[in-house]
Amino acid sequence: MFIGAQVSLYPMTSDFVDVITTGLDALTPYKGDLRIETDDMSTLMVGAPEPLFDAIRDLFAASAKRPEHVTMHVTLSRGCPGEPDDPSCRCETLERAQDQTLTERQQLAAQAVKNAPELGVVIDVQFSLYVMGAGQHMNEIYGCIDFLKDSGTFHKSKNFCTRLRGDAGAVFETLRQGFLRFGPAEGHVTIDLTASANSPSLG
Amino acid sequence: MFIGAQVSLYPMTSDFVDVITTGLDALTPYKGDLRIETDDMSTLMVGAPEPLFDAIRDLFAASAKRPEHVTMHVTLSRGCPGEPDDPSCRCETLERAQDQTLTERQQLAAQAVKNAPELGVVIDVQFSLYVMGAGQHMNEIYGCIDFLKDSGTFHKSKNFCTRLRGDAGAVFETLRQGFLRFGPAEGHVTIDLTASANSPSLG
Repeated sequence: MFIGAQVSLYPMTSDFVDVITTGLDALTPYKGDLRIETDDMSTLMVGAPEPLFDAIRDLFAASAKRPEHVTMHVTLSRGCPGEPDDPSCRCETLERAQDQTLTERQQLAAQAVKNAPELGVVIDVQFSLYVMGAGQHMNEIYGCIDFLKDSGTFHKSKNFCTRLRGDAGAVFETLRQGFLRFGPAEGHVTIDLTASANSPSLG
Repeated sequence: MFIGAQVSLYPMTSDFVDVITTGLDALTPYKGDLRIETDDMSTLMVGAPEPLFDAIRDLFAASAKRPEHVTMHVTLSRGCPGEPDDPSCRCETLERAQDQTLTERQQLAAQAVKNAPELGVVIDVQFSLYVMGAGQHMNEIYGCIDFLKDSGTFHKSKNFCTRLRGDAGAVFETLRQGFLRFGPAEGHVTIDLTASANSPSLG
């Protein structure tokens, strides 16, 4: 299994380099657990979902606590057949999911969101979950949408994606649960995610 | 068939509202052919791939011609089983693709990129193509990657995505061809796309 993300932070300010540097500093505690490589378009993070989602959450939360409007785009992937197996990506939640029904996975996901830490910053997220290579992929998608609607972070459905809103702790736990507990445990699942904070046009 | 995109423009400047307004002005010629709805996180565009990709291209090209660093995120989708059929999205390229081999589709895609208009602005793109609900989805992905590598806009492969670089005309034609000619013609295909221009950290 290979699990990781391409992450880009977009501060809507002329001091964008400074905000990006602040965000990247929040990744320091995770450098032992994740492979992190930055180029001119995005930062690659590879590793298990626990440090991976925590790192992305802390990167965005640190930036969102500043006053400027900031957004982030993340492409998350697990189980891509084109990527090599990586022992650092091993995930017990995924291994156990193979023997769990959709209902059990929905309950475990809901509990995890309830237990999420509070980070003290409210964010907006818009995301799409993609389950590849499975004939019944829409069953898993609809099962995930049911979980999302009861998660406490659900904001609204839109064409092609779902909006979440809430504390960064609960929102990123919702995303991690969606990523891990829906779609085949050994399958190829991706998330296309946009986060936003301090938007002047917030509806 | 339902085809469309959620589009967000991110100018890295404190005058971001002005740049976004400039970009949205470039959509005016397409308002008859596309359904366009903007909220606080993204702009929904629904319609056939010809005006759809042209509109997204012109939106970004207009912004990229300004001096500021600007990025754009686009979530593209065709054939999502959860969306209603929409006659305005009808696409001859997709209808013909049902009877074409992978090799034929690769040749037609390459020719379309050669015929693309030149817009006079060089951009960077990073994207992932997802083919859902098909057991052989990786064959179509690898077929698309072969097309990309010969397209003239290929820059490099990265984990989870592919980088393109070139004139906005050729780059967006490459994306449209990838979106339409790979994966089942009646299937659910999506693209997770990030574009960038005027980056100070361009490698």
